[in-house]
Amino acid sequence: MISVQEATSIVMNHLGDFSTETISLQDCTGRILAEDVFADAPFPSFDRVMMDGIAINYASWEKGNRSFPIQEMQPAGVPKTSLKNTDHCIEVMTGAILPGRTDVVIPYEEFDSKDGVITINLETTTQWKNIHRLGTDQQTGDLLLAKNTSLSPAEIATLAAVGKSEVLVRKLPKVAIISTGDELVEVHETPAAHQIRKSNSHALAASLTEMNISTRLIHLPDEREAIISQLKTIVAEHDVVILSGGVSKGKKDYIPEALEIIGVEKLFHRVKQRPGKPFWFGTKGKTTIFALPGNPVATFLCFYRYVKPWILASLTENQPQPRQSVVLTEDYTFQVPLTYFLQVKLNNEKGRLIATPIAGKGSGDFTNLNQADGFVELPDDQSQFEKGEVFRYISFRK
Amino acid sequence: MISVQEATSIVMNHLGDFSTETISLQDCTGRILAEDVFADAPFPSFDRVMMDGIAINYASWEKGNRSFPIQEMQPAGVPKTSLKNTDHCIEVMTGAILPGRTDVVIPYEEFDSKDGVITINLETTTQWKNIHRLGTDQQTGDLLLAKNTSLSPAEIATLAAVGKSEVLVRKLPKVAIISTGDELVEVHETPAAHQIRKSNSHALAASLTEMNISTRLIHLPDEREAIISQLKTIVAEHDVVILSGGVSKGKKDYIPEALEIIGVEKLFHRVKQRPGKPFWFGTKGKTTIFALPGNPVATFLCFYRYVKPWILASLTENQPQPRQSVVLTEDYTFQVPLTYFLQVKLNNEKGRLIATPIAGKGSGDFTNLNQADGFVELPDDQSQFEKGEVFRYISFRK
Repeated sequence: MISVQEATSIVMNHLGDFSTETISLQDCTGRILAEDVFADAPFPSFDRVMMDGIAINYASWEKGNRSFPIQEMQPAGVPKTSLKNTDHCIEVMTGAILPGRTDVVIPYEEFDSKDGVITINLETTTQWKNIHRLGTDQQTGDLLLAKNTSLSPAEIATLAAVGKSEVLVRKLPKVAIISTGDELVEVHETPAAHQIRKSNSHALAASLTEMNISTRLIHLPDEREAIISQLKTIVAEHDVVILSGGVSKGKKDYIPEALEIIGVEKLFHRVKQRPGKPFWFGTKGKTTIFALPGNPVATFLCFYRYVKPWILASLTENQPQPRQSVVLTEDYTFQVPLTYFLQVKLNNEKGRLIATPIAGKGSGDFTNLNQADGFVELPDDQSQFEKGEVFRYISFRK
Repeated sequence: MISVQEATSIVMNHLGDFSTETISLQDCTGRILAEDVFADAPFPSFDRVMMDGIAINYASWEKGNRSFPIQEMQPAGVPKTSLKNTDHCIEVMTGAILPGRTDVVIPYEEFDSKDGVITINLETTTQWKNIHRLGTDQQTGDLLLAKNTSLSPAEIATLAAVGKSEVLVRKLPKVAIISTGDELVEVHETPAAHQIRKSNSHALAASLTEMNISTRLIHLPDEREAIISQLKTIVAEHDVVILSGGVSKGKKDYIPEALEIIGVEKLFHRVKQRPGKPFWFGTKGKTTIFALPGNPVATFLCFYRYVKPWILASLTENQPQPRQSVVLTEDYTFQVPLTYFLQVKLNNEKGRLIATPIAGKGSGDFTNLNQADGFVELPDDQSQFEKGEVFRYISFRK
């Protein structure tokens, strides 16, 4: 059995490569950029008026002029006009290009207007006041968004501004989610006394939906030959195969054997952790196989601790992802020499993330997850965990 | 002009009602539950075997028996069998229903097997060991998920387990996003010297996409009559109308007047904040109108500070949403008597959320948002903000 650290390092040393695709800007939210994006023009691309009011010539102001006849109006979206007489002014609207021979904008609040002549009530002003000057934010050719950036609404605004109506992004993996276990029936069915409804595969599909990844749900019966033949096709057709169940020591746990028979290289089986000890991991060509234990909390933990970070790293050419740390609110004891993933409720207390244990009744008690927000990772070389200590946190809520 | 607190309270006192709809379980991720969900059976619904191994009768163990002939196997998903002789055992698989007349499960690691008879190597065991007993997690009729719960993968597992293949959820609002400003051209177009590409409306659409809400993007020209006639139809056809631009003091800022002409009740216009001072808010019947300032950072801030919390509160019957607080890493000065929303980069330092100012060059400099994660809300009654002080945080990243 290997440690959580060893398992993590093996998983992260076998990243997937999902290639790239070009998609429309409106489909980009949440996707990973696969190209560098540069400014196609200065930002702003012209001296932009920042307030509604008038634009004047600063030299005229410096000479002592305070009254300026209005020559005309310069609205936004209209080609640039110019002062004919530098002792006059031009009425300007926010977003307009600054008129020629003007270099100060005075907002409406600061002047009176009568018979087409305005009189400024300010004591002082400065050249370029209320003007967002050409190129002050970015220059043509500046790198605005680097490859591997996750595209949130802020980045969508930048992509729009530089004219990227089509964007090169990382392709999302083709994922199969496989449930196993003859005790499972469909959600719409009524289970007999010895049966339960499928829930793990739906939780996994939901987790992947949150990552914009659509999935194929497949159920395999507890029959050795059927598992071998179906797994072969599934592994060939997907980038990622996530199994739930069938990896323990039971007589019907055919998954590890079947994976090896169809040529999947086993990279590890069994990790010193609770929940999720029977976790099996392997690859075949470009396909990565996560065979997760079938106990619901174990499936859930393994997805968020191993599978999700692996997908994010694969999509971003292994960019480091930020880690969350949290402060434990209560002493906790766990004597078994395994890494223990403790369910916790998270609260923000004056900027400190504090984690309150919501232990639950074991890895089968998945309704307990509804009360919790994530797992605190309690290392295997320690058995007393004290209030106030800081631990790594694995969130399962957005 | 009203304060940020007054604006917040007016917005939150005019929540929307978007009704409910029944959708398939696979579409529920991220949606808000509109019904209470109860356990349709005990959890677990039978005495469930938790380890692969053998099941024995505890009374027989207590009598001193350590060797048990195997009667048969009880796999998962097979109707319950029973011990015929309580001094024998039944081989059991994880997930199986516990065989009748057995009440201890001994895992494979703890016994040897020879010629169909197993010999247990344990010193002690206890009744019900390795058995997940019927009803220990939940009882039939227990409330598992309350109305207004946000459906993350954990809750999806619970919905699946209780057979909710169809779920009553809150309907998402019909949202129109309106851009204004004659200087704007489409993303695929090349702007002339006095033009820029639309970016605010795409950022807003992306923000709503992250909330699973699809939007209609509409552009209005800077023409009074066109704005009035088109706004009338748009307001009638949507639950929420979000405008960007046209709410300031310019001669072409027809939006506030147009909204009042078509019968939208103005609830406020102008808030003591930077960015976003010209923010206008009103309602007409069941439609809520957020007319946001057009400067990109102002649009962005107003969405995350007012619109998003309003949508979440409307979807959840005003359930309190958790607030984030963060610790400022540097002294910061802002002398103007306005609430200032400072862009910051967020880091987790041993469980403390620390916010480093990334001030940017004003509300037009939206490429600065790419470097930041959110806004710190610096109150208007203070002008010196010190390193180590805790402030409210508005995140714009998931």
